[in-house]
Amino acid sequence: MDEERLKRTRAAMASEGLDALILRLPENVLLLSGYWPLTGRSFLLFPCEGKPVCIVPGIHEKEAIKELWDAQLIVIPFGRITSGDYFGQLRRALKDAVLHRGFKRIGFEGSFETFAPPWDVAEPAIPAAPTRDLLADAAGTAELIDATEFLYRLRATKTPPELSRLRIANEIGAMGLRAFSEALREGMSGVRLASLVESTIMNEGTGYKGATRVRGFAQVSTGEMETLDGYRLMLVSTTRKVAAGDLAMLELAVVADGFWCDRTRVHVAGSPNSRQLAAFEAIMMAQASAAGAIRAGVTAGAVDSAAREVIGAAGFGDGFFHSTGHGLGFRYHEPIPVIEPGVTTILEAGMVITIEPGIYLPGLGGLRMEDDFLVTEAGSECLGPAESRFAS
Amino acid sequence: MDEERLKRTRAAMASEGLDALILRLPENVLLLSGYWPLTGRSFLLFPCEGKPVCIVPGIHEKEAIKELWDAQLIVIPFGRITSGDYFGQLRRALKDAVLHRGFKRIGFEGSFETFAPPWDVAEPAIPAAPTRDLLADAAGTAELIDATEFLYRLRATKTPPELSRLRIANEIGAMGLRAFSEALREGMSGVRLASLVESTIMNEGTGYKGATRVRGFAQVSTGEMETLDGYRLMLVSTTRKVAAGDLAMLELAVVADGFWCDRTRVHVAGSPNSRQLAAFEAIMMAQASAAGAIRAGVTAGAVDSAAREVIGAAGFGDGFFHSTGHGLGFRYHEPIPVIEPGVTTILEAGMVITIEPGIYLPGLGGLRMEDDFLVTEAGSECLGPAESRFAS
Repeated sequence: MDEERLKRTRAAMASEGLDALILRLPENVLLLSGYWPLTGRSFLLFPCEGKPVCIVPGIHEKEAIKELWDAQLIVIPFGRITSGDYFGQLRRALKDAVLHRGFKRIGFEGSFETFAPPWDVAEPAIPAAPTRDLLADAAGTAELIDATEFLYRLRATKTPPELSRLRIANEIGAMGLRAFSEALREGMSGVRLASLVESTIMNEGTGYKGATRVRGFAQVSTGEMETLDGYRLMLVSTTRKVAAGDLAMLELAVVADGFWCDRTRVHVAGSPNSRQLAAFEAIMMAQASAAGAIRAGVTAGAVDSAAREVIGAAGFGDGFFHSTGHGLGFRYHEPIPVIEPGVTTILEAGMVITIEPGIYLPGLGGLRMEDDFLVTEAGSECLGPAESRFAS
Repeated sequence: MDEERLKRTRAAMASEGLDALILRLPENVLLLSGYWPLTGRSFLLFPCEGKPVCIVPGIHEKEAIKELWDAQLIVIPFGRITSGDYFGQLRRALKDAVLHRGFKRIGFEGSFETFAPPWDVAEPAIPAAPTRDLLADAAGTAELIDATEFLYRLRATKTPPELSRLRIANEIGAMGLRAFSEALREGMSGVRLASLVESTIMNEGTGYKGATRVRGFAQVSTGEMETLDGYRLMLVSTTRKVAAGDLAMLELAVVADGFWCDRTRVHVAGSPNSRQLAAFEAIMMAQASAAGAIRAGVTAGAVDSAAREVIGAAGFGDGFFHSTGHGLGFRYHEPIPVIEPGVTTILEAGMVITIEPGIYLPGLGGLRMEDDFLVTEAGSECLGPAESRFAS
C-alpha cells in the first residue's frame, strides 16, 4: 500500500472540499487503489475518509484481489451468457456504495480527452453518456465536480513506490533502445526495427523485477523525408529499406503494469556525415544542458531555455520547434508540467518529465534524443539510463 | 470512394430525419470518409446533402489528403510551439462548417462506451466534456441526437469495398495463426508466442495488398489453468513454460488500416490425450455446424443453437457458457448482431460475424476456435481461411 499517495490525496481532497472521488479510467484507479484494470470496466469509489470500494467485472477478480490495497471489493458477473446486465448491476452497486455516506461533493473524471489505455489496448472501454448517467444516479443529491485538473495536479508529483515502478518501465524501455541500436543496419526497414523493439520489450520485460503486463509501442522513421516528420505525435513505420548513411529514429512508449516511459533514440546506419554529427552533438548537449538545469524550485521555462539555447548556439535553432518536454508516468504524456518557452510552472521534487530536444531540417532530416528525468531537490536523475551510440 | 456506403448512409439519415452527423471516433470517421485518423483528433461533418467537411490537425494532413474521399479538408496547426490553441481553432472551424446550413437535427456519438483505438493505441484521444461543449457550440439551435445505435446499425452490414478490406485483415490474421501453430513446442512461453505472432503480423502484414498500418494484439494462454480462464475478454500472457501435452490458445485481434479481425486457435504441444481430442473435435464441428446454419434471413439464435447443440451432444455442454459470436469489422467487437441463445435478430447479407464456440472445463482446460464469416444470401464465407492443426 502506498501510504504516502493516500495521505497526499486525502489532504488535497480535504483542501478542495471533495468528499469522495468516483474513478473508472484505469490510470486513476491505479493511482488510488494499486489495481490496474485490464479493460477499463472497473469503478473505484475513493472517499476522503474510510475504506475505498472497488467494483470489478468477474473476469478481473483475480487481478483485483492480487493488486488492490485495503479496499472493499465488489465483483459483478461478466462475460457469460448467464451473467445478466453488467451495467445495471454496476449501477446498483455504485449507488449502494455511495448511499448514506453523506457526501456533498463528489469528484469525477469529466474532461480526460486523452487517456492511457488499459492492458486491453485493442478495444478500450471508455466513459460516455451511460457512465455519466450512472454517476449522476449514484451521486443523488451530492454535487458532481469535474476533478480532472485536481487529478492531474495530484499525479504530477510521484511517490517513492511510484518512482520504483517508473524506474522499472524505464529500464525495460532501455532494453528496447539497445535492441534498436544493435539491429540498425543497411537494408532493415522501419517496420522490421519497430517489431523487433516491441518483441524485445515483451520478451525481456515481462517478468523483469516482477512486471507482469509489459508492452512496447515503437515508431521507427528512416531516411531524411521520414525523420523530417519525426516531430509529429504519431508516425507510421514503413517498409522502406535503410540505406547507408540514413538516419533512423525510434520513438518508444513502454507500459509496465500501468506505468509508462517515453524515450527516443536516433542513429545513423554506417558513417555519419559532418552535418548529422553536428546535429546529433547539439541534441545531446541540449539534453545534458536541460538535465543540468533541472532542480526543484526552477521554472519549466528555464529548463526549456537551457535546451533551446544550446541548439540555437549550434546553428540549428530553426529546426527545434516543439516542446522540450512534458510530465508523464501514469500516461505516455501528462499535462503537468509542460516544458516550453516562458512557462512559469515551478518544478517540484518528485515530478517526472521528459527532456527531448530535436532538430528537423530539410537536407538533414530529423533527430531527437529523449529520456525521462526525476526532479530532485538537488537536481535530476535519469530513469533507466541508456547510452546513445550515434553511428552503427 | 465507397458510393454504396454513402448512398446507404444518406438514405438512413433521411429516414431518421438526421440532417448531419458530427463524428470524431476514428472508426466512424473511417466509415463515412475513407480516412482513418491516426490519433483521434480529427472531426468529420457529414451532411445528408452536400460535401462532407473534415477538420484535421496539421500532423495528419498527409494521411487525410491521401485517404479522404470527396470532402472539404480543413487543416489546423498542431504540435509545434507556434501552433496556437488547437481546440479553440477546431471550435471555430466546426462552427463555421455548420453555420448557415440550416441543420435541424445533428447526430453525434453519444454512447460509445467501447471504441476502436486509432493507430496511436498507446494514447488515444477520446471525447469528454470539452468535446461535448464544442459540439453544443457548433450545433447552435439545432438539436443534438445521440446517433450511437444509428451508427451501429449502419455499420452492421458491410459494403463490397469494406469487405475487401476485411478480407485483407483476415488474411493477415491467418499469417499470425500460422506462426503460432508452427512455433508452439515444449519450453515456449505464452509471452514468447504472443510476441512472435505480433511481430509476424507487423512484418508480413505491412505492405500486404497495400495495407500500411498493421498491428496484431495476441493473448496466449498455456496449460490447463490458464486456458480455463480463456473465456475471459482479456488474458495476460505469462512466462510459464509450455509442457508436453499442454493446451495453448491464441486469441488474436488484427487491425489493418482501421479494419479488424478476431480469430482464435488452440493447439496441443505434442500428442493430445483423448479428452482434448474429443473437445477439439466438438468445437471444430460446432463451428462448422454454425457456419452451415448462417444465411441471410435466419435468426442469430438459430446460428447459436447450431453450435451449442453440437457441443451439448458431444457431452461438453456445461463447458460452453459464452456467446457463439458477435459482429465486427470497424472494431474488434461490434454490438450488432450478437449470436446468443434466443436472439431474434435476423442476419442480413453483408453482415460479418465471428463464430467462436469454446469449451472450458476443470481437468481439461479451455479450447476455442474462432473465425470471421460473411453472411451471404446463399450461406456464408469464411474470411481469410486458415487451417487448424491441433497437434504439433
